[in-house]
Formats: sequence, structure tokens, C-alpha cells
Amino acid sequence: MASLENDRFLRALLREPVDRTPLWMMRQAGRYLPEYREIRAEAGSFMNLCTNPELACEVTLQPLRRYAMDAAILFSDILTVPDALGLGLYFSEGEGPRFERPISTAAEINALDPARAASELGYVMDAVSLIRKELKGSIPLIGFAGSPWTLATYMVEGGSSKDFAKVKSLAFNEPELMHQLLSKLATSVAAYLSEQIRSGAQAVQIFDTWGGALSHNAYREFSLRYMTEIIEQLPREADGRKVPVIVFTKGGGQWLEAIADCGADAVGLDWTTDIGAARERVGDRVCLQGNMDPTLLNASPERIRDEVAQILTSFGEGSGHVFNLGHGITPGINPDHVAAMVDAVVELSPDYH
Amino acid sequence: MASLENDRFLRALLREPVDRTPLWMMRQAGRYLPEYREIRAEAGSFMNLCTNPELACEVTLQPLRRYAMDAAILFSDILTVPDALGLGLYFSEGEGPRFERPISTAAEINALDPARAASELGYVMDAVSLIRKELKGSIPLIGFAGSPWTLATYMVEGGSSKDFAKVKSLAFNEPELMHQLLSKLATSVAAYLSEQIRSGAQAVQIFDTWGGALSHNAYREFSLRYMTEIIEQLPREADGRKVPVIVFTKGGGQWLEAIADCGADAVGLDWTTDIGAARERVGDRVCLQGNMDPTLLNASPERIRDEVAQILTSFGEGSGHVFNLGHGITPGINPDHVAAMVDAVVELSPDYH
Repeated sequence: MASLENDRFLRALLREPVDRTPLWMMRQAGRYLPEYREIRAEAGSFMNLCTNPELACEVTLQPLRRYAMDAAILFSDILTVPDALGLGLYFSEGEGPRFERPISTAAEINALDPARAASELGYVMDAVSLIRKELKGSIPLIGFAGSPWTLATYMVEGGSSKDFAKVKSLAFNEPELMHQLLSKLATSVAAYLSEQIRSGAQAVQIFDTWGGALSHNAYREFSLRYMTEIIEQLPREADGRKVPVIVFTKGGGQWLEAIADCGADAVGLDWTTDIGAARERVGDRVCLQGNMDPTLLNASPERIRDEVAQILTSFGEGSGHVFNLGHGITPGINPDHVAAMVDAVVELSPDYH
Repeated sequence: MASLENDRFLRALLREPVDRTPLWMMRQAGRYLPEYREIRAEAGSFMNLCTNPELACEVTLQPLRRYAMDAAILFSDILTVPDALGLGLYFSEGEGPRFERPISTAAEINALDPARAASELGYVMDAVSLIRKELKGSIPLIGFAGSPWTLATYMVEGGSSKDFAKVKSLAFNEPELMHQLLSKLATSVAAYLSEQIRSGAQAVQIFDTWGGALSHNAYREFSLRYMTEIIEQLPREADGRKVPVIVFTKGGGQWLEAIADCGADAVGLDWTTDIGAARERVGDRVCLQGNMDPTLLNASPERIRDEVAQILTSFGEGSGHVFNLGHGITPGINPDHVAAMVDAVVELSPDYH
């Protein structure tokens, strides 16, 4: 069993006692940091950064040099999985991620080979191993993947979407075909996350960015069900420690009770949910992660500190809270404002433990 | 008191007995109808259509010739109010609505004159009077406006936004200035809706399209509070009948209890909320409106019918439900699929009354 200097993140995920509320930040390695933009410019493209383990490792470590984060998160993208499945991921300026070969027909879905997800993504596993080594036992490393539903939205729409008309039409008109696609993606993601755990990830998060676009019934049928299947397949122990799983459905605040039953150790909240009310709803079944509005990082350091205090107070005393934003940090944020958030969590949260 | 041939919409909003569940559809006059596209092409621009009472009346009536809708809704746009306040509304292809003169400074907010909203929008009142006359007492006419928060997002961002960074920064960093803006907008919207009621609108809906982008606390402070203020100022009777008010916050499903206390007679639901669970939460305080996922209109007529049945069953027996989509219909929908939805409500809903 490898020892960790700081394990409060892993302990809080399992609702074990901690000295203060641990924190990390979704997209903590990213464009808001000038040192990231420098490496990104040298790499030439976002994909060059993802596929080069040394560069991916370097940007993963960058925010840790500035802030007292309690976890590192692998630098990668959720769409590396469909890319490995052969869809041809590229990034077009201003339009976000796109696929050269989106899918929609039975033939295209039949042709997908889930085994490719793990076999083609050796560069991610190399990055995980390298980051883990470079962390030198200081803090744990989080691995991650997109949820099957979220991956399917990009794969069928060909990129980002406003109303998800194509992928929802597939789900409504050809539910069996949609389930076939989601089932293959669940197999792919389970294999991919398992490999990340074997390579050194000490916790994993499933990002369900677009589950909240579904109706209450469709969410259970097309998104939650497949996250549950993935969690059942993951190795849940590594280095003699439990490997906690976090599920984050943006816009899933109405469905917390159901999400809390999916087998995950922790549920991520966006900022539309009162974390204290959420805690009452899920009881001691899961840890809660979140949930400051990322746009609040545009506010003054004093206002940021007030918001951190409000979230800590709302959650209340005891373990089972990982502080985070309610979604990823955006590119234009001043790094000093992130410091204000981090300092507030470090200084204010011991009173709750 | 002018008599109405079909008043089940107004009765359901007040939870009075009805023979079947009434329905209308957000954006029922719109681009999915070929006859709308023809008039829109002749008009030359969307704003020409809005500002010409005869054309606005004609497109308002178009869906009523095809479908058994239980209410007409004024054809207009929520952004006519900020346009009347001097911001210069225009529509750019592919980018949606934009303002020539967005606002952000104290001087710009100070300069806004709420009295202009009612005085500059005579063309809307002319349309309301004309539509009301042409409806000949068949079904009621709904007037509408955007919520102060929703209008403010467009006015400060200059158009649509992904993360609302500018308007939220204003709210977080200069809350007093933000409240000044929202207060002026509440005055404008209250005057505008009051004038619509005096011109013939028999119910009104406040569209809070972007309230759901706020945190639970910020929603109460920056959106719900001002809708409550508006409702307090509206004339609540016309032609000897109560004029019901509907509030629709897209993404507001977590806050239903608070919304149900804002003074509105009915609360609109998007498709992420189970309408049966919502009914349990709000009890008999308000009518519920909604809530089929608009993308379901891409599905087969059989699948649409199943979904209608599911929503009717979830709401259950008794009055207090107005069937609608959970958001506006999108341009690409086949009009025959709308007919399938309407027929299903007309045929299946009597069993619940």
C-alpha cells in the first residue's frame, strides 16, 4: 500500500473524518493559467497536448504548484474514447469539439468495437503512470471519463448541440439501437476507467455533462442506467485502498435520490442545488461534491470568500463534502481569484470538522 | 362580461373543473408552420412581423386553424421591451437576437426610462386588440413578457450567452446596480403586461428563460423576487373574469415550492420535472403547465401519443393541468407530429376529468 501525504480527498469521498474540507476544481489545469497557455501554444493543438504523456503530466501538475489542491486530475478530454472508437475527433476554433465521422445508423453502431477504447488509449495510461510517479505520494490522482449518454450526444450530433434533436430522435424512434450504442459505450468506458485505475488513478469521476438535457424518465433509461453498469464493472480497490467513484450529472439536481443509488461513493452537484438541502435528501448514502457557480470567480475576492463560507455553512458539520465548482472553470478567470477560493476553503473549513 | 365559447384553459389555470385537459404550445405560431414561413418571408424580417399588428394577428391565428388549441398566444418577442427602452434589437442570422447598445454601467442603467416600455409598444397593444377581435370569443388570448432577470441577461450580454459571465459579474460585484436595473425592468414589465391586459389579454405568462442559470440563492434574489413584484402590480380582473398569471422558469424544477408562492396562478414546468411529483410538492396552491420534451415531436406519432399518455397519467385526475411542451417548439418539426400530440390530449385527457 503506497502511503499518501495528504489523503483527505479520498477520506472525505468515503465520509471518513478529515481535518478540513478537501478541494479540487473541475478543469483546474486549463486556459485560465498563463503557464498552461504557454505549453498549449508550444504543443500546437489541444490533441497534441492530450496525446503527449510528458506534456499532459506537466499541465496536470501546474495548478498544484499554485494552489493547495487536495487532488490532481488527469489532463485529458472525455472525447478521447469516441476518438479511439474511430470517429475522428478534432477541435474547430469557436465551435468546440467535432467528429469527422459522426454515427447514426445501425451499421455504424454495429461497427463500433468497444475493445478499442482501452487498446488505443495507451497514451492516457502513460500519462496516468507518469503523473502518479511525479506526484510522489503527495496527493491522489483522479481519473475520469464521460458518461455513455454524454459521449453519445457528441457522437450522434457530430459535436456540441443546443437541443440534442438528432441523438434524442435516435433514442425516441430507435430505442433498441440507442441502447446498443450506450451499452457499447458503457463497456468501453468501464474498460477505459479500469485501465486508468490499474495505471495509478486513485479515484475516478464520470462526467455526465448532458444528462440534464433529458426528461426525468429518459435520464434513468438512457444515462443513469449505464453509469450504474460501469460502476459495477470497476475494480474498487488499488494499493490496498478503496478507489472511490464520483458521478456528476450537470442539471441532475432533481434526481439526486436516484443518482445516490447508482453505486457511486460521491455525487457532484452543480450550483443550482442547495448543498444543505441535497445532504438532507441523500442522507449518509454518499459524499457530495461541489458546488460554487464558476462565474462567481469573476467576483471580488471578498465576495468569493462569502460564497465559500455560505456553501460550507449550508453543508454543515462533518465529513462527506469535497469542495469544488459546480462546473469547470472558464478560460477568462483571474488566477488570483482561484487563490481566494482555495484560501477560503483552507481557512474556513476546519471549523466544520 | 364577454362570454367565451371555450374557457377550459382559464378554468384549468384556476383549478376549476374542466371536461378535458386544455392545451396550447409555446411558440405555437412559428417556423415549423409553412404558412408562417410564407408570411415571414413577405414581411422581410422578424421585427417587421412583430411591429405590424395585422401580420402579428395573422400568424397568431395560423396554428388555431390547424389544431384544437385552447388558447391563442400573442405573436411577439420578449425582447421588444428592452428594444423600447432604447437598446436597438436586431436579429443576426445564426446568432439569434442582439442589441446594438448593450448596457453595463451605472450611467447606462440610470438612463433607462421604464415608462417607455408601455408608451413605445403601442404596436403590441394594437396586435392584442386586433387578435382579441378576430378570435371572436372562441378561445382566450395569452399575453406575455420576459422576466426582468431574463431581459437583463440579454441587455448586459448583448445577446445570447453560454455562461452569463457579464451579467452575473454585474450581479455579484455590483448587486445594488443590478437591483436597480431589475427594479426598472420589473416596473417596465408590469406596465407592459398591465397594458396588454387592458387591451384584451385574458391571461399572461412571464417567461423566465434564464432563471435556471442562477444558483438557488441567486435565483430568489435576482429573478423570483422581481416576478413576484410584477404580479403584485397587475390588474387581476378583466371583463368580469380573473386574469390568471403563469410563471415559467426553465430549469426551475428544484425551486417549485418557492415559485408556487410568488403569487402566480400557474407554474410552467420544463421536461426535466416529473409533473406528478411536482403536483405532490406544490399541492393545490397552483395549476401546473407542461411538460413534454419538445424534441419528442421528432418521434413517431405513436411514440408522441405514449408520451402524452404518460404525462396525463403522471399528473393524474382532476383539474389544474394545462398541457404544453416544456419549452418552445423548434423550427424543424413536422406539423403532423404536432397534430398527433394535440389529438392525443383531446382524446385521452377526458378520462382524467
